[in-house]
Amino acid sequence: MKLGRLNHIGVATPSIADSIAHYRDVMGASDITEPFDLPEQGVKVCFVNTPTHSGMDGTQIELIEPYDESSPINGFLAKNPAGGQHHVCFEVPDIEAARAWFEGQGKRILGPTRIGAHGTPIFFVHPKDMMGQLTEIMETPKEGH
Amino acid sequence: MKLGRLNHIGVATPSIADSIAHYRDVMGASDITEPFDLPEQGVKVCFVNTPTHSGMDGTQIELIEPYDESSPINGFLAKNPAGGQHHVCFEVPDIEAARAWFEGQGKRILGPTRIGAHGTPIFFVHPKDMMGQLTEIMETPKEGH
Repeated sequence: MKLGRLNHIGVATPSIADSIAHYRDVMGASDITEPFDLPEQGVKVCFVNTPTHSGMDGTQIELIEPYDESSPINGFLAKNPAGGQHHVCFEVPDIEAARAWFEGQGKRILGPTRIGAHGTPIFFVHPKDMMGQLTEIMETPKEGH
Repeated sequence: MKLGRLNHIGVATPSIADSIAHYRDVMGASDITEPFDLPEQGVKVCFVNTPTHSGMDGTQIELIEPYDESSPINGFLAKNPAGGQHHVCFEVPDIEAARAWFEGQGKRILGPTRIGAHGTPIFFVHPKDMMGQLTEIMETPKEGH
């Protein structure tokens, strides 16, 4: 296992619209994607693109709002009604090799490998096994992100 | 205000040594700085450098451990004993202009502008005014980070 790119940090919010306004009007973000639904994961999602020295390919802020009452982020928002940092996501070249690695380390993986917000396979590792950080592992998109 | 680079995410930990072992041995990080004390801020600090497509200049993971019993992160660790995501930090070109901007937006700034872990001026904005995210604003280092 070799540490991959920090693709995004996931930020839960009770309102994607309010969070978009916050990042646009207060933080000055100029590149925010249109929100879309990920019903299988129980969330609505959009991305705030952040600048690097060479472009807008920095670590993204993934804004996530509950899709319905069964959303897995409802518990987080019950504890953090204003929203807040929910997870971190690192890229790997091969999702199956990464899954085998974390399983071999005795880390609890939350559910099956599935398709994530970038259209590539992902899985989540339990925060209690990851120094308190809910950690998403995603396969690097073949072209950009 | 124009959104700057996501310099780092701050991750609180009860043990920097354990977090370094986690990032090195489980996550595969190869570039972790030596921990150092920031007694004025009440924390011990080190950085996990993350890769980008062009080098190791990605958003850093800032590991922070309490320096003493008066550390401002003791409250966070009391609620999150395993540690977890504590703050996000965005760069700005001019710290005084940024401070005036956030003050003008009615955002509560936590304490005076001071020198942060990268040796440049920083301040923190209250999470309740920032959609639940404790937000550090730091002046971009003149050379690298």
